[in-house]
Amino acid sequence: MPTLYHHPMSAASRFVRLILSEYGYQTDLAEEMPWEKRREFLALNPAGTLPVYVDDSRRALCGAAVISEYLDETNGVLKRDRRLLAEDPFQRAEIRRLTEWFLHKMEADVTRPLVRERIFKLQMTAEQGGGAPDSKILRTSRANIRQHMKYLDWLAGSRKWLAGDRLSYADLAAAGALSVLDYMGEIDWVEASQVKDWYQRLKSRPSFRPLLAERVRGVTPVSHYADLDF
Amino acid sequence: MPTLYHHPMSAASRFVRLILSEYGYQTDLAEEMPWEKRREFLALNPAGTLPVYVDDSRRALCGAAVISEYLDETNGVLKRDRRLLAEDPFQRAEIRRLTEWFLHKMEADVTRPLVRERIFKLQMTAEQGGGAPDSKILRTSRANIRQHMKYLDWLAGSRKWLAGDRLSYADLAAAGALSVLDYMGEIDWVEASQVKDWYQRLKSRPSFRPLLAERVRGVTPVSHYADLDF
Repeated sequence: MPTLYHHPMSAASRFVRLILSEYGYQTDLAEEMPWEKRREFLALNPAGTLPVYVDDSRRALCGAAVISEYLDETNGVLKRDRRLLAEDPFQRAEIRRLTEWFLHKMEADVTRPLVRERIFKLQMTAEQGGGAPDSKILRTSRANIRQHMKYLDWLAGSRKWLAGDRLSYADLAAAGALSVLDYMGEIDWVEASQVKDWYQRLKSRPSFRPLLAERVRGVTPVSHYADLDF
Repeated sequence: MPTLYHHPMSAASRFVRLILSEYGYQTDLAEEMPWEKRREFLALNPAGTLPVYVDDSRRALCGAAVISEYLDETNGVLKRDRRLLAEDPFQRAEIRRLTEWFLHKMEADVTRPLVRERIFKLQMTAEQGGGAPDSKILRTSRANIRQHMKYLDWLAGSRKWLAGDRLSYADLAAAGALSVLDYMGEIDWVEASQVKDWYQRLKSRPSFRPLLAERVRGVTPVSHYADLDF
């Protein structure tokens, strides 16, 4: 069976887990602490980032964008109306633009710094950079969330799904990030009613259940985290 | 004719210009200063990043990864042995992994900070963040170059082209970054003889000529910048 190296609080890992689950694929999950820089893990992915998908022939696919394209080419193309990338090249470009937005821009502005400061640093040793969160980084990232939520609210309010009429990679990439931020209680849902409607629809999908049951050491999720009606 | 919004010292813009030129496409080039955050430009690409490709129907494609996938789907697929993405999904994944490495990892570790400190800040006003380069950022980025050059040297020494037997997006993405760093004299070629051989082959291609003729205000290129035999 293929193996997915992931971390429960890695938004990109959650994105790939949602794809695999939407397509009905079984994989073994192997939890990886990227800050440990394990030699065996770096041999799979020299960039040291998550997720990494290792197929049955022990070939490694590195990073959510690469894995998602591979899964579309080898499997998605057969899924017809359940395909998570469109047929039309321009529509594909819009899905990719937004997927990249969540995997790179929102990740850099918001998700990565908040997860690092609030969760990873609790598990790191002092040598690895562990310790108390940096309040300046928390403040900046929280200011950035508001901008990202505004854009998401606009997208969710003007389209059925984020990239158009159908559920796509863009929705799953956004949901990977939002679910991690929501776990930490970082999202103000009152200010983003359109995002809330969209997220509620996603949260009700069977692919989402494993994420809602997950817990990480040292940080209890916000009380509404697993509620479908929040 | 389509328009490419670019900056001469944007590695990702150079990557897309090389693709367009390898495929023989004509585009208008529009120089954009991303730090100005022009309203019209942000309407094309809310992320505010370069490059942006606007087609004849005034539809915008944002970012080098999105543009390169679109060009492959609409044109590359017809190019047979001149196609810059492979046919095999796993080989495609390797090309994408390396392309992403240069577009995101090397960009964040090395290219973006050096270009910002040494070139963009000369052109920015004080309000935009302009001024003298931050010596700590220069030092960190230069230490990072050495690691990236080692990895590149290993790739260039163990494969004909960076991702395998054929010229691909991976080579053009790497060349976009290296050409910008070389312009600024940031590359120590003595330490990287395999990369040098590979870069020499790329530099001799007609697609490279426009990049070698380019100059930016305030920074003269290193003397060997345009030499094919350096």
